[in-house]
Amino acid sequence: MNQSQYPSKEDLQIRWTKVQNSLKESDANACLIATNVNIYYLTGRIFTGFVYLSVEGDPICFVQRPVDLQGENVIHIRKPEDIPCLLQKKKLSLPSVLLLETDQITHNEFLRLETAFNPKVTGNATPVLRKARMTKTPWEIEQLRISAKQHAETYQQIPSVFSKNMKDVEFQYEIERLMRKNGSLGIFRTFGNNMDIFMGSLLAGKNAETPSPYDFALGGGGLNPCLPIGVNGEKIQPGQTVMVDMAGNFTAYITDMTRVYSYGTLPDIVYQAHRTSIRMHNCFMETVKPGIACADIYNRSIEMVEEAGFAAHFMGTVQQAKFVGHGVGIEINELPVLMKRSKDLLQTGMVIAYEPKFVFPDIGAVGIENTFLITETGTEKLTVLNEEIVNLI
Amino acid sequence: MNQSQYPSKEDLQIRWTKVQNSLKESDANACLIATNVNIYYLTGRIFTGFVYLSVEGDPICFVQRPVDLQGENVIHIRKPEDIPCLLQKKKLSLPSVLLLETDQITHNEFLRLETAFNPKVTGNATPVLRKARMTKTPWEIEQLRISAKQHAETYQQIPSVFSKNMKDVEFQYEIERLMRKNGSLGIFRTFGNNMDIFMGSLLAGKNAETPSPYDFALGGGGLNPCLPIGVNGEKIQPGQTVMVDMAGNFTAYITDMTRVYSYGTLPDIVYQAHRTSIRMHNCFMETVKPGIACADIYNRSIEMVEEAGFAAHFMGTVQQAKFVGHGVGIEINELPVLMKRSKDLLQTGMVIAYEPKFVFPDIGAVGIENTFLITETGTEKLTVLNEEIVNLI
Repeated sequence: MNQSQYPSKEDLQIRWTKVQNSLKESDANACLIATNVNIYYLTGRIFTGFVYLSVEGDPICFVQRPVDLQGENVIHIRKPEDIPCLLQKKKLSLPSVLLLETDQITHNEFLRLETAFNPKVTGNATPVLRKARMTKTPWEIEQLRISAKQHAETYQQIPSVFSKNMKDVEFQYEIERLMRKNGSLGIFRTFGNNMDIFMGSLLAGKNAETPSPYDFALGGGGLNPCLPIGVNGEKIQPGQTVMVDMAGNFTAYITDMTRVYSYGTLPDIVYQAHRTSIRMHNCFMETVKPGIACADIYNRSIEMVEEAGFAAHFMGTVQQAKFVGHGVGIEINELPVLMKRSKDLLQTGMVIAYEPKFVFPDIGAVGIENTFLITETGTEKLTVLNEEIVNLI
Repeated sequence: MNQSQYPSKEDLQIRWTKVQNSLKESDANACLIATNVNIYYLTGRIFTGFVYLSVEGDPICFVQRPVDLQGENVIHIRKPEDIPCLLQKKKLSLPSVLLLETDQITHNEFLRLETAFNPKVTGNATPVLRKARMTKTPWEIEQLRISAKQHAETYQQIPSVFSKNMKDVEFQYEIERLMRKNGSLGIFRTFGNNMDIFMGSLLAGKNAETPSPYDFALGGGGLNPCLPIGVNGEKIQPGQTVMVDMAGNFTAYITDMTRVYSYGTLPDIVYQAHRTSIRMHNCFMETVKPGIACADIYNRSIEMVEEAGFAAHFMGTVQQAKFVGHGVGIEINELPVLMKRSKDLLQTGMVIAYEPKFVFPDIGAVGIENTFLITETGTEKLTVLNEEIVNLI
């Protein structure tokens, strides 16, 4: 591990200030953070324990494990019940309004922490942290650029690991190896307890249409009923597409990117649908900038799909996803979400994956996904790579 | 997917009865299950939604996604608030004592479900399901046998993917590919929100000593501060050990297995420690049977380590794990736990991973881990493979 893997204190300070401003807006005195993703966000590292951030001052890290963790404002504890006493020893008053991550921690964790602090009011820290994480700091953007670059370079190499008569799962694990070889950390962080997936998704042929239990853009039947998503072990056939949508977790910050490969030639209508997706991306880049409503991007996308005559294929057939894009960062499904009922407006520093996709029964899925940085004047595409369908043979 | 990947109704019935007996013991009328692992346990499949199991009758599946899920007792719903009304339509009375998974679902999920059902008393379903899952059904044992067999066959092939001058991470991703090639589903399910890991752990040399935030047996520094566990990207050096502890998730049921490889010869003391671990395994097999206390296994293990003079190396150096084994199943860290304060006695049908390990600074970790089925008369080793240190060159 090297120093460049850690954010500077100045960069962390931007995050603390965002959270502290939200605390003030909601008349809260402090938040106590217990989940890995938010501990990482606020400190640049992961430990078992808690981060206490009040409206003033730097956060305090109450650490259970690892036992050897050192640093500014690090206090080792045995259990969360130790924290209130330690705060009082530091002459800090206990919060009368305390926010806990009530959309993330378990009910029993909540009860334990609420009992330990006994505040007058306990509120929800999850939306505060999700909102802070929605716009990225300079260091976070740098990490996303590193991920995007490695992501694109890996995708460029995908055809080199394909061979005829491969099963979808064989192609998938060769791509996984390529990702790991190029620095993928492997882990796939999602918001929501039940969002199982492994490294990302590869969908070939008929399997692209199979609905999954999860709220990802597309599904796939999976190899086992305990993980009903992605490859299903069938052979990739001539005349099918292979859609690759692997997570670009080459740093803590994940880029999202989809490209399509074909095994032989496809019917014209499938190429047309793919070009519709590319055209939608071009429209996205021409029109999107800070101030635009996420709902408007969704609605405009639906209009373009309907004009092109592909509504029945859009984001699935049997089951259709109700969004066309989403924020990315430490988790693959961050805010904002590009969907009809979103109230969010785009802001400078957001990083958004846009993924209009089409499914054709028996042939497969087409369409691309790119990750964009929202700049002061428009968008910058981070995942730069040829967007046409690449023939594998 | 084929039929053998699904448990029979008879096998599921055993599980339902175990849960129903626990419900009766705790004077509860029903449980409402919302987490993937427990939905999978009770139905043999995963969906987004809820399983409602009352003290009498078969469970009812309330399904949100996928939209095309069919089956006995499957009812599609839009939101959990629809459930009470649907139960009443089926002439079922609403529970006055309802158990929710309060150690697993978020506080806000809890509030939403409690409000929807408005029971007199809401209790905790997590220990009920954890206890039921502690002993395995015939089909579950069959799945664990499949995983164990593939796990051992994969480990047998590990030396074939090693080459000189490899970094630990390079060795790791070649082993990952081997695992996937042999049918690993990839996903790593753990109990506890903050237990991040990717496919398992490979520890070489000095890195074996590095403490991690997680409550796994050993640590490792990791490649990035966002995942501080496992390989750290250093080159594997002559005179070091490589401990491989990858999850055997070749079915929904995970076996746990550790073997050690050496790069060249090691100091005698390291071989002695490794043989202590093997001797502890032999003692485990000779003495363990239903009725034995998990705490006694822990205490006897500590005694053997102290007699051998390796206490300072046991389960880490800087940070030492406080258990010597644990149940495995749908999650890698199931009950019971072999630790001092355990109150559990072993029962027929439990599946336990035993993992006495020793760390030597600069050299690495040694010791083995096997997964055992507890039978009526003793133990059966599921992960059968040579246990000596295998030299890689």
